[in-house]
Amino acid sequence: MPDQRLTRYLEQAGGEALLSAEPGLVRMLTGHAGDVATGPSPFQLPAMVLAPGDGPARLICSADEAAAGELVHTYEGFTAGPIDPPSGAWQALSEALSEALAMVAPGARAVLVDPATVPASVVWSLGERGAPAPDLLSLGSVKNDAELAAIEASVRLCDAGHVAARAATVAGATELDVWAGVTAAIERAAGRRVAMIADLVSGPRTAEVGGPPTDRRLDSGDLLICDLVPRLDGLWGDSCATWAVGEAPAWAEPLRAACLEALRVGLDALRPGALSGDVDALVRSVVAASGYEYPHHTGHGVGFRWHEQPRIVPGGSTRLEAGMVVALEPGGYSDGRGLRVEQVAVVTENGCRVLSAHPLGLAANDGAAA
Amino acid sequence: MPDQRLTRYLEQAGGEALLSAEPGLVRMLTGHAGDVATGPSPFQLPAMVLAPGDGPARLICSADEAAAGELVHTYEGFTAGPIDPPSGAWQALSEALSEALAMVAPGARAVLVDPATVPASVVWSLGERGAPAPDLLSLGSVKNDAELAAIEASVRLCDAGHVAARAATVAGATELDVWAGVTAAIERAAGRRVAMIADLVSGPRTAEVGGPPTDRRLDSGDLLICDLVPRLDGLWGDSCATWAVGEAPAWAEPLRAACLEALRVGLDALRPGALSGDVDALVRSVVAASGYEYPHHTGHGVGFRWHEQPRIVPGGSTRLEAGMVVALEPGGYSDGRGLRVEQVAVVTENGCRVLSAHPLGLAANDGAAA
Repeated sequence: MPDQRLTRYLEQAGGEALLSAEPGLVRMLTGHAGDVATGPSPFQLPAMVLAPGDGPARLICSADEAAAGELVHTYEGFTAGPIDPPSGAWQALSEALSEALAMVAPGARAVLVDPATVPASVVWSLGERGAPAPDLLSLGSVKNDAELAAIEASVRLCDAGHVAARAATVAGATELDVWAGVTAAIERAAGRRVAMIADLVSGPRTAEVGGPPTDRRLDSGDLLICDLVPRLDGLWGDSCATWAVGEAPAWAEPLRAACLEALRVGLDALRPGALSGDVDALVRSVVAASGYEYPHHTGHGVGFRWHEQPRIVPGGSTRLEAGMVVALEPGGYSDGRGLRVEQVAVVTENGCRVLSAHPLGLAANDGAAA
Repeated sequence: MPDQRLTRYLEQAGGEALLSAEPGLVRMLTGHAGDVATGPSPFQLPAMVLAPGDGPARLICSADEAAAGELVHTYEGFTAGPIDPPSGAWQALSEALSEALAMVAPGARAVLVDPATVPASVVWSLGERGAPAPDLLSLGSVKNDAELAAIEASVRLCDAGHVAARAATVAGATELDVWAGVTAAIERAAGRRVAMIADLVSGPRTAEVGGPPTDRRLDSGDLLICDLVPRLDGLWGDSCATWAVGEAPAWAEPLRAACLEALRVGLDALRPGALSGDVDALVRSVVAASGYEYPHHTGHGVGFRWHEQPRIVPGGSTRLEAGMVVALEPGGYSDGRGLRVEQVAVVTENGCRVLSAHPLGLAANDGAAA
């Protein structure tokens, strides 16, 4: 019944249960995909998961957030009465604790608490029973089939967003005009609002690697870097491409070819047993041979969070396993110039399977229906 | 130098300093308007404010978030190296603490900690120096002139969103089509991405009071409730109107008239010294006389959070003061029917000044240029 990934984590870390308010871990352990897009609410604390090693995980959230079928402990949310979510959440969590940890001696340091997301009120109330949970970024790096399908659905949203962004790319339009096309296409494809992280930078801004869309107007010959990271059903997708407004400058195609070759080499290296740091060095070297470099990671795990293990970074010591989902994103940047490509792949028993299907050409109309 | 509102709060609550990660309080005390729209980041903790009663407030955040000119203590954020935001944030906060609380005896219970937003790691590290901060929802209920101007700018975004929503209202369009018009208009008007809470419900969904836009198609004779709550420069606006797709059903105009009358009566009652519970009862009674009722608050403060003091609710005991910003939103709901109107006003020395300027008519083209 408990998630085997959690059971192993608790055995290694030495705890009876995990308590986290990290939306990705809540999704992984309870199936609950809460909203992340509007910051703290005065009516509720973030939804939390209490997951023991030897029983079902429990969701602690306001009644507004709870969905049917979840093993959930709720407290009042939106109300015209007095509001006090810290005590409401603590009462619901107390109930969950007494059911989930009935066998644990009071006073034992049983509950490993996510140090970055669980709020202060809960820590005080837990007292000596709570201790910091180590290294949570690795928990959930290997996905099951249902999770892979959900990530693939998010990657399909990326594809739809790229097609719309390219269609909206015309000289004189602003980055925000392109962005409006992206959000409309992705939310229509999802049939609901979608939380999204995005880089959308054009012209000289491409040298800055990323940044949100602004009212800068696209000029003929500009490049546009579009990196879309939507969250659907609690799981994140990722994707990046770079294309030109009208005709691309002469330096762009050689750089694009180098980045595509680096991406291909990286995808070839994704297989069980590969070392994350080796993949990083390999991909980085291909771009370096073109005379460019990138200041960021080569790639990262994606799914429960938009950046998780395995991190494909210099010196990375993670051994890849089947079921890990990796975004690779080599790029090149220099004065006034920037270009990046990115695809997401899942590591399989003997290699990897690419999930991304968005166009990667320099022509804005690449991939458009004839 | 310290914010007088904070000084009074700390005197009443009995603490040397306040520590909060609530984005509204961070904005109020440091001017920093961080992003709220994508949930927790693996690279950083939420930005925090450490505000002593007798000195300047300090921002604790990752280097990625810090803006020039802020009194800021930073740690590394986005990186290709190892990531450990809890210890980074704690080191930056330790530095801020030792500078801000140099005169406070070690071990004293000096720091009042926001129980809903400050993460566990910081609480453990503070140890005996941290204690729960009471009643933070009232802190910042009275705004200064610069804050009022920022709220007014957010309310202008609401106005732009309503005009776009009405223009996109045609039979056969989906709620998400209308929503795409709203987001494009608001983000173009702001010149940047804008975090937004919204109800956008049509037809029978209006009886549910609120909810996000879906792929439901608008039908002739449907009503559409549109409640837009954008955040610009860290301050929230609010607004609601209800209009018809084509010709409105016969029951709609009498209900709209009752809600508008309730709104007018409520605005007339907004003045220094008025009791929030009295305003609630007055507005609620006007709607009740029409045979309808609403299950939610009559209104709420808005600005640093999207719902704050003064809460206009049954039994509310807050005395209004000049500088408070209040959203009033009477509505009526019954089987398959729903309608709501909302305006935002600031309490002045002898009444109030309405900030909202969005159309409130039942015809979708109300307010459209001739």
